[in-house]
Amino acid sequence: MDTKKVIQERRSVHSFDPNKKVTDAQFKQLFDLVKLSPSGYNLQPWEFIVVRDAANKERLKAVSYNQPHIADASAAVIVLGNKLASAHAVDNFDDWARKGYFDQGTADNLKKQMKDWDQRDETTKRVWTTRSTALAAMTLMIAAQDMGLATCPMEGFEADKVKKEFGIPEHYEVVMLIAIGYEAKSPLPRVWRRGYEEMVHREKF
Amino acid sequence: MDTKKVIQERRSVHSFDPNKKVTDAQFKQLFDLVKLSPSGYNLQPWEFIVVRDAANKERLKAVSYNQPHIADASAAVIVLGNKLASAHAVDNFDDWARKGYFDQGTADNLKKQMKDWDQRDETTKRVWTTRSTALAAMTLMIAAQDMGLATCPMEGFEADKVKKEFGIPEHYEVVMLIAIGYEAKSPLPRVWRRGYEEMVHREKF
Repeated sequence: MDTKKVIQERRSVHSFDPNKKVTDAQFKQLFDLVKLSPSGYNLQPWEFIVVRDAANKERLKAVSYNQPHIADASAAVIVLGNKLASAHAVDNFDDWARKGYFDQGTADNLKKQMKDWDQRDETTKRVWTTRSTALAAMTLMIAAQDMGLATCPMEGFEADKVKKEFGIPEHYEVVMLIAIGYEAKSPLPRVWRRGYEEMVHREKF
Repeated sequence: MDTKKVIQERRSVHSFDPNKKVTDAQFKQLFDLVKLSPSGYNLQPWEFIVVRDAANKERLKAVSYNQPHIADASAAVIVLGNKLASAHAVDNFDDWARKGYFDQGTADNLKKQMKDWDQRDETTKRVWTTRSTALAAMTLMIAAQDMGLATCPMEGFEADKVKKEFGIPEHYEVVMLIAIGYEAKSPLPRVWRRGYEEMVHREKF
């Protein structure tokens, strides 16, 4: 579908049809687009837990302020960001060297640098992984809309409890949740957006 | 253009034609799509400085590890996130109440709650604004690609110096920079991406 139309028609949907399911093939197609998102140094810190089982969605809902669309949607996707910059550094930088972006010495230095980045303070690591992971989350919502699916991003959850319930290691940030499925009924009118002149500055703040 | 094709063809471009400029009308069209991005509570913390003047691009480049595409691109966009959740709370929640999402009492309570959120710790505020602002940044890159423009997101900059050079108030986070313009030459082959099985978990981590 046309990109402008997809961006214009995407809404955060709160009312899902509990009987219409997203298939394995649709998830594969979706994440094969999501993975093409850019990220800092192409380190792709994103990871996703697709929760489709009814009991598991209820467990997630219980640690997410009981938002009903978590249970009603076909799936709730837990969007995770790895806080360790080194996690995929070897595969990534060796690939860059192989493809002629830089030489192997530079690749090896970058691999070492990412090990140092693993030791940065917690705030830096959380902001770092949230930045790139949210890029992938937006691609997910746009690609889903293009596929005729509805989504709803959520930041209302108890991160520690989500991590405990779903066995998520300490070094991951729970960046957001995204409900995904089929819309049950048309939403209310689109809410207000800030205008161009208000959000765009020229040359300086 | 077709959304899948746009997502598949978008690349982070490092080589811009310094003579081809993005027009005012293009920026207006671009940001009118960007503003439709979702955000936590629809608070739209994003703000953008479009830097097109050659001397200003050089100043930005100097505080961004001298990345050459900042100067070569038609513009460098400084992507900012407001750390104050209350900034647009009144306009936003009153609009929700008017449109029937909830009653005015709920709107008033949420406005108060956002004032409390302004007092959250710095880490929470930085992660919060980065999350929603990065969603808008991804919409910007996808919409630009659809318009025939090339982009390059950057996280390599000295945030304090960027803020000082461009008069950015303390309560904004510099989330990323995005170079935007026209591609000068075809890039090297696309770099590696993690596969579906590696990045997607089922039901639990």
